[in-house]
Amino acid sequence: MTIGTIAREAGVSVATVSKVVNGRVDVSVSTRERVETVIQRHGYRPRRAASAAGSGLLELVFHELDSPWALEIIASVERVAGQHRMGVVLSELGGAHRPRQQWLDDVLQRRPRGVILVQSELAPEQRRQLETRSIPYVLVDTAGEQVPGVPTVGSANWAGGLAATRHLLELGHRRIAVISGPGDVLCSRARVDGYRSALEQAQVDLDPSLIRYGDFYVGGGYEHGRRLLERADRPTAIFAGSDYQALGVLRAARELGLRVPEDLSVVGYDNLSVAEWIAPALTTVDQPLAEMAATATRMVLGLARGEAISSLRIDLATELVVRESTAPPA
Amino acid sequence: MTIGTIAREAGVSVATVSKVVNGRVDVSVSTRERVETVIQRHGYRPRRAASAAGSGLLELVFHELDSPWALEIIASVERVAGQHRMGVVLSELGGAHRPRQQWLDDVLQRRPRGVILVQSELAPEQRRQLETRSIPYVLVDTAGEQVPGVPTVGSANWAGGLAATRHLLELGHRRIAVISGPGDVLCSRARVDGYRSALEQAQVDLDPSLIRYGDFYVGGGYEHGRRLLERADRPTAIFAGSDYQALGVLRAARELGLRVPEDLSVVGYDNLSVAEWIAPALTTVDQPLAEMAATATRMVLGLARGEAISSLRIDLATELVVRESTAPPA
Repeated sequence: MTIGTIAREAGVSVATVSKVVNGRVDVSVSTRERVETVIQRHGYRPRRAASAAGSGLLELVFHELDSPWALEIIASVERVAGQHRMGVVLSELGGAHRPRQQWLDDVLQRRPRGVILVQSELAPEQRRQLETRSIPYVLVDTAGEQVPGVPTVGSANWAGGLAATRHLLELGHRRIAVISGPGDVLCSRARVDGYRSALEQAQVDLDPSLIRYGDFYVGGGYEHGRRLLERADRPTAIFAGSDYQALGVLRAARELGLRVPEDLSVVGYDNLSVAEWIAPALTTVDQPLAEMAATATRMVLGLARGEAISSLRIDLATELVVRESTAPPA
Repeated sequence: MTIGTIAREAGVSVATVSKVVNGRVDVSVSTRERVETVIQRHGYRPRRAASAAGSGLLELVFHELDSPWALEIIASVERVAGQHRMGVVLSELGGAHRPRQQWLDDVLQRRPRGVILVQSELAPEQRRQLETRSIPYVLVDTAGEQVPGVPTVGSANWAGGLAATRHLLELGHRRIAVISGPGDVLCSRARVDGYRSALEQAQVDLDPSLIRYGDFYVGGGYEHGRRLLERADRPTAIFAGSDYQALGVLRAARELGLRVPEDLSVVGYDNLSVAEWIAPALTTVDQPLAEMAATATRMVLGLARGEAISSLRIDLATELVVRESTAPPA
């Protein structure tokens, strides 16, 4: 299969096929789609021009740059890319989970070596556009979503929920609440399921009113924290969906005159650097964001070199870090 | 002045001049330097090829990506660049304040519309290389350094130090310590000078042993905080060089059984989001990082369009944000 065959079959010139493959914008949409379809039918993989050293770009795409842990991912991708002398082009989708076509047109024109997506995914049509240009893409999955056929690096959310809850059970807690992320984000559900399993194993009855879904930010932790802690039968421990949520729970506890960990144990999630420094220092589940990002970067660079990958999905281990915010119930 | 004149005078072909201007690496260093010298002598500004929409790149360069506030700058540059449909290439210099030539070679090859440097600067030779290729550059100056002739966006460090200290004086404090950043970073000195002026104006004697220089991180605040607070004549208030330093001071106070703000008032610097959420919520000086980054981005894009800039240096205002960590002395 050569570029000439593709051109003949699509009824265009070789120059036009070349333009499509190189992300040029001076090709009509209908021509572009026709060429892409032929390329895809034949599974043709255009060879990249041997590029000069240092001309390579990697695209790193975030759903939003408001997540306090985005910097850990950025710094880690930057480090690995730098070792391969690659420039990292950073994009933010402004809260959209799928990029607009304009963004993808710009990416295709830049001809990056690969694309790394965080908290976002491509429409099937957009994936096809990358594939027909031999641009590999990898997801860093902080949300627990499985996209069939797409190489993904995630972390063990269910095991994180299990470990956090077991820790509280071992301390002697029986009324344990969980405030997780939004219910439509799979990682929230996976962590809650880990919590459930830990309770079941310990033969502690589940009280559904102690399970809350909210956003991952301080406000979510604060609102649910207030409501849980104002109850007469308030929980003696709360497992929060993020360290920022845990900050909200700590504030709710302070306002109600509850001491942590004497009157209330709190576990966070993520292990941001601030978790270590606040008072009380936060017991939390370490999500290995830097390692996830580094793994995804190595994966996409390997794919760009034409290497096969051994597994489409890699989940890195989460680990409980015990500090001062948890203790046996009073 | 045409490219032909440059070529004749440098004794090379027009194609070679074009290669140099376009950042190609297949030109010997000596030829490149000869061409650059001729270009510079004549003040020649190569015209950029009219680029297709969306093909523009901006380079954003950090000294290190470990600063907790880097994300605010990144998100802000990203936002403004996105409005102009520019891709942002992010680089980290791995702790070096001046980029290596290899990095600059890669940048020249990418032919960005402009370069934004944070906590870092270019060697004169490197500046010349950008200038001879009509690539403008702007500094986001969090350190308070003035580089002659280089467009810079900073913030009012001296005024920040003055406002923080005046606030403590107005509360009635007289023994006020300052822990600033490293003494060789100008912003540290500017803030300490603001502190000095506030004391002088209030006719409070300066105790030089209450002025400390350390790093901007938690450790620096903790170490100096311990030493200051263990003294018999301990200060009743500490003005810290960053919110992270303030976290270290808060920890030192806790360990010594001192309550904030009852026994000790603490002021931070930066106004990171976490400052609002910790207990006690931190009184701090707001450094307008997002606005500084946005201003620098607009500036470099204006320069790339050939616009003149009205001022080589813009310092944005800092502002004291009063929360719960400051109160009158006991």
